[in-house]
Amino acid sequence: MNKHIILLPGDGVGKEVIESAKQVLRAVATEFGHTFTTDEQAIGGEAIDHYDTPLPEATVKACQEGDAILLGAVGGDKWDTLPADKRPEKGLLGIRKTLGLFANLRPVKGFPSLLHTSPLKEHIISGSDVLIVRELTGGLYFGQPSERRENGNVVVDTLHYHREEMERIIDQGFQSARLRHNHLTSVDKANVLESSRMWREVVDEKKKEYPDIQVEHLLVDAAAMKLITQPNQFDVMVTENMFGDILSDEASVLTGSLGMLPSASIRSDGVGLYEPVHGSAPDIAGKGVANPLGMILSVALMLRHSFKMEGEAAAVEQAVKESLEQGYHTADLQMEDGQLVSTGQMTEAVVENL
Amino acid sequence: MNKHIILLPGDGVGKEVIESAKQVLRAVATEFGHTFTTDEQAIGGEAIDHYDTPLPEATVKACQEGDAILLGAVGGDKWDTLPADKRPEKGLLGIRKTLGLFANLRPVKGFPSLLHTSPLKEHIISGSDVLIVRELTGGLYFGQPSERRENGNVVVDTLHYHREEMERIIDQGFQSARLRHNHLTSVDKANVLESSRMWREVVDEKKKEYPDIQVEHLLVDAAAMKLITQPNQFDVMVTENMFGDILSDEASVLTGSLGMLPSASIRSDGVGLYEPVHGSAPDIAGKGVANPLGMILSVALMLRHSFKMEGEAAAVEQAVKESLEQGYHTADLQMEDGQLVSTGQMTEAVVENL
Ligand SMILES: CC(C)[C@H](C(=O)O)[C@@H](O)C(=O)O
Ligand SMILES: CC(C)[C@H](C(=O)O)[C@@H](O)C(=O)O
Repeated sequence: MNKHIILLPGDGVGKEVIESAKQVLRAVATEFGHTFTTDEQAIGGEAIDHYDTPLPEATVKACQEGDAILLGAVGGDKWDTLPADKRPEKGLLGIRKTLGLFANLRPVKGFPSLLHTSPLKEHIISGSDVLIVRELTGGLYFGQPSERRENGNVVVDTLHYHREEMERIIDQGFQSARLRHNHLTSVDKANVLESSRMWREVVDEKKKEYPDIQVEHLLVDAAAMKLITQPNQFDVMVTENMFGDILSDEASVLTGSLGMLPSASIRSDGVGLYEPVHGSAPDIAGKGVANPLGMILSVALMLRHSFKMEGEAAAVEQAVKESLEQGYHTADLQMEDGQLVSTGQMTEAVVENL
Repeated sequence: MNKHIILLPGDGVGKEVIESAKQVLRAVATEFGHTFTTDEQAIGGEAIDHYDTPLPEATVKACQEGDAILLGAVGGDKWDTLPADKRPEKGLLGIRKTLGLFANLRPVKGFPSLLHTSPLKEHIISGSDVLIVRELTGGLYFGQPSERRENGNVVVDTLHYHREEMERIIDQGFQSARLRHNHLTSVDKANVLESSRMWREVVDEKKKEYPDIQVEHLLVDAAAMKLITQPNQFDVMVTENMFGDILSDEASVLTGSLGMLPSASIRSDGVGLYEPVHGSAPDIAGKGVANPLGMILSVALMLRHSFKMEGEAAAVEQAVKESLEQGYHTADLQMEDGQLVSTGQMTEAVVENL
């Protein structure tokens, strides 16, 4: 197959891990006889420095023409004092919204060889395998008004949802559950928020269409507890944008493999943006020590979701697993024995195993 | 001293633990020569059943006349299908708002004899001692509009803050830090929300008044991670209402002593409402097995904050500690050896140690 992939390295270690993604793409293309063309574009702080905006028109245009997008990471202290609309994160929020990438999928599953690095006790974390499905283009993130009032003495943000925005993400949650273990936990704050009460209604309506899926409602505060005390009691969790932001980051540290976690931001036609969960990590940027596996596993997600290349995706995941089992690890992964390697060496190990 | 205390048992195990609170109050009164008068009022599901409202006028009036309030717990499945304004939680939200209890203080500190019950590994949790200061009467909880629109196809909730509401809770954060280890972590989502950008400005202004306090800004998603990976890196955390709801519940399960945790909801003149962090636990209600220590430690917080009885508060806390060291524990606390006791027996042990 021919696929056109937009590469957005962004800031910090983003640049380094995108190089790893390219190598893996080349290997997959050779191995499976595909043609992947790529187009590299600026986003985030990098784009601010060169084009005075975190999301240049050229980047948006390129992304609109791609079959999928790979993003490294955006942000860094350097740009933290700029006004809100000139901050690197605006680039990320802008591309999500412009492309309509309404569903953020974050699988959190520990690698057996890394579970000992989890902050949780082994009997708590073992067996856990959660997929968080987060609404990504609505809610408090984009609701209007979001402004100061009364001479700057009052401020409001707006948690805004259209019923259809709820329906499509909740559908995504049910469909994801069907591909996994048929259990869906819907998270809201229905004892306080009107938007959550509507959310709960939509879930209850939708569940009639998915009689094979077991549904549970959980309040967001209870969910924040249960992720820690019983992480292996979850299958798929679906929730709105801000709750999803908090809970998915909370979940991402449970297994001890933050640097390994991929994420997908998708829409219904298959177009998606794939990025590692970790940030731009300015402190270690440019040193060649970043863990490329979160990015490489994001490539696997892209192959699976956007290109329907299940075999290729599984091959990449298998190659990552084997590299870890061979004892290779980057500096972020505390391993007793094994061999400490650089970003480049880790990538080569994966390519080798492919 | 003479103090008038309003007792709100509420629902489920709330009724049982309020009995424990009464016994402890009697013991403190005798021991230290105080007179505590009490007045018991209905709230939550109990009030719905008897008065068709979760917050009867009589309860509000009594609370307005008390020096402090002790609450057991509210809520239960039984009332979960009622319309929003008739739900038990509305009683709790109503009393917070009506009395202006804008600051929720949640200390989370493990008891050495219970740390082995933590879901976290011992080297992660040991030494942690966090106080979460949560804004309690603003933000998404009370902002208007909060409504359906366009024939029920659109919904909005409003995150609303007045600058003064931010100032007073942030002041509370700084003052709490001063009584502890002079470190304040302010949590917001300034890369997305206008309200968070204003919050951050207020913190930066206020910090000039507290040059002795070290201040750190943390995004809410990063805070949700750090609570798990480095809980002992926090001293005081201050945040807005919804973030505080999620983060304080997340924090409450870290030490493995959820049933032991107290909370205080206070205002500037010293009046406060004190309640255990745990809920009404309908599944174990009426069986005499609930852990009364969260309630008893809430009595200690009341003695300290509302009545300025530091010696009395410390004596109650010490009596709880001794009871645990003597090996007494309720069913929720997994202890290898030790003696499993009922709510009543645990309370007696504490009273004895007083
Ligand atoms: C950078 C930030 C705006 C973003 C978000 O809050 O969505 C990030 O935290 C994420 O989860 O991708
Ligand atoms: C019962 C509920 C409305 C309440 C809240 O969200 O404030 C509770 O979770 C709490 O934290 O006290």
